[in-house]
Amino acid sequence: MRPAHGGDRIAFYETFGKEPLDFSVNINPMGMSPKALETLGKATDRWVCYPDTRYRRLRRAVADFYRIPAEFILPGNGASDLIWRAAAMLRGGRVLLTAPTFSEYECALSAFGCGIRRHFLKPEDRFALTDRILEEITPDLDALFLCNPNNPTGRTADPALMALVLERCRENQVILWVDECFNGFLEEPEDHSLTDKLFEYDNLVILQAATKLCALAGLRLGYVFCGGERLREALAGYGQSWPVSVVAQEAGIASMEDKDYLSRSRALIAGERERMWKALESAGLEVLGGEANYLFFWTSVPSFGHRMGQMGILLRDCGSYPGLRSGYYRMALRMPRDNDCFCGAVKRITDRTAE
Amino acid sequence: MRPAHGGDRIAFYETFGKEPLDFSVNINPMGMSPKALETLGKATDRWVCYPDTRYRRLRRAVADFYRIPAEFILPGNGASDLIWRAAAMLRGGRVLLTAPTFSEYECALSAFGCGIRRHFLKPEDRFALTDRILEEITPDLDALFLCNPNNPTGRTADPALMALVLERCRENQVILWVDECFNGFLEEPEDHSLTDKLFEYDNLVILQAATKLCALAGLRLGYVFCGGERLREALAGYGQSWPVSVVAQEAGIASMEDKDYLSRSRALIAGERERMWKALESAGLEVLGGEANYLFFWTSVPSFGHRMGQMGILLRDCGSYPGLRSGYYRMALRMPRDNDCFCGAVKRITDRTAE
Repeated sequence: MRPAHGGDRIAFYETFGKEPLDFSVNINPMGMSPKALETLGKATDRWVCYPDTRYRRLRRAVADFYRIPAEFILPGNGASDLIWRAAAMLRGGRVLLTAPTFSEYECALSAFGCGIRRHFLKPEDRFALTDRILEEITPDLDALFLCNPNNPTGRTADPALMALVLERCRENQVILWVDECFNGFLEEPEDHSLTDKLFEYDNLVILQAATKLCALAGLRLGYVFCGGERLREALAGYGQSWPVSVVAQEAGIASMEDKDYLSRSRALIAGERERMWKALESAGLEVLGGEANYLFFWTSVPSFGHRMGQMGILLRDCGSYPGLRSGYYRMALRMPRDNDCFCGAVKRITDRTAE
Repeated sequence: MRPAHGGDRIAFYETFGKEPLDFSVNINPMGMSPKALETLGKATDRWVCYPDTRYRRLRRAVADFYRIPAEFILPGNGASDLIWRAAAMLRGGRVLLTAPTFSEYECALSAFGCGIRRHFLKPEDRFALTDRILEEITPDLDALFLCNPNNPTGRTADPALMALVLERCRENQVILWVDECFNGFLEEPEDHSLTDKLFEYDNLVILQAATKLCALAGLRLGYVFCGGERLREALAGYGQSWPVSVVAQEAGIASMEDKDYLSRSRALIAGERERMWKALESAGLEVLGGEANYLFFWTSVPSFGHRMGQMGILLRDCGSYPGLRSGYYRMALRMPRDNDCFCGAVKRITDRTAE
């Protein structure tokens, strides 16, 4: 049984009889880069060709953008494709996951018979990673998956703690898989990325994607960064020869070159994050985290998600995540006017509940 | 180590210093359907959304096209994505493959530790499948992979033999995986498809793709058809939630609706197949097969592929396929003028060799 994901507009329509204003998926609300759209409009004649199986041009562009060698990069059909490759590589192994975290890790690892151990993040820590994780990194483990900032909590781990985690993983011959797919939305992305450790730690794998930051969720584009040649080759060995479409490549390259779009996106998110955090709190929700492009909150209002649905708003009910329970929700930051609609709907519910 | 595939234009450029006229990949020479291109031009605003994880609209369109129930269909990121899912499902099992055949099967199955047994097709049979295959279908096998028409030989199997193979697979609890990706280019596609057996045999899996027939190689779109619920669910369980991009879905749906494009494509291929078969034979090549959109031939001319490369022509050297040796080649049928260029180049080589 697959876990639910955000973005099921069809199920929403079937339940509520209208198209939703969708806050359940965490993608850049500005949409695709204008440069990417322009490139796509022109490139149709090249779309009939098979993708380059070595992805030479794409890997060079990603290398420039993240300032790492092109040979460290393994592209995939969205980050999820690479999560499934990792699971295939780790099959039958022992893996430590936090709870809550992105559900696709457990889905893929379980399919390949991995033994999952859960490290529960605590509500009293507002679901932050703490140094409790260190003692759980033991030699019987094959890998530790961390999502940073974590999905759905929106919390980053302390950089000093991440350095200790990485070191302890190496000491215990544990692969550290860090999902940095939401890193690009942070105030200070560099401070929270382990990219510069790739040269030093061959047990480190970083997952990145253009899906969120460049709004290529529909086109599918992700990457793995790994400095360890053996580990990288092993991962590469578990997937088809043409995972990334020509369209996703072209859009990805154009997006990374569109510095103006990226900086405007970051500025928009930074502003809306602060504004909406305050607005949701003053509407009576308990905001627990949200350093990237989404806010994570708790509310005691019963059937909150369903009531938002009745007002045409789709948000991510996080009640089914291991480590959470009913009342936890995640909302993606969208354009200011949409966010205002969200707030308005929240207020209508909380006002009515307070009466 | 991955097997080589056709279509490496970059490597060609590095060797020969020019862009090739590419006969090494077997895709519809008419390019994408005009309806698909039109749809793509309009749909850019929808590309930012995640694909529907249940692919409801796409599966309905595929169901109408192939006249099977929508619930039999599992879409993938090109046929190769689904080959890798099959390999994940079969991991550690015993699989029978013909030699030669499409190299991605063995690549994927080996990655997942499957034991491969090869059934060598014989030059004296012009590499046709014969009833020798029946005695090789034994209870120790988990699956048999057949490509029909076979790649690279271009040969279909006799429909009566295929029925016996399917029956014998069921008797021995062997999964029969039939790759029909090139079926749409045949003179009589229905006569060579096992689609109507899906209702009766729950050990049958058919692989199809829009990659070749609708020239969506760059966009990536394939499907598995399977009537057996347990088998289909098992396959579905080995891949990510969003394998097919929104773009590939839209292009696939529009292509299947474009009956005019499809019938013109088939007519073009039928004409060029007959014309080129004769032309290559009269130029001194031994054509061994080619019922789909490519011809398979043998030549005693040394370094034939390299000499074609010097004249700007990229074709598929099949010397490295298990079951073949140096001198075997595959050419995709292209538009008439391109095919004439191919013939001209062949003649220049064979005339010079004959002197």
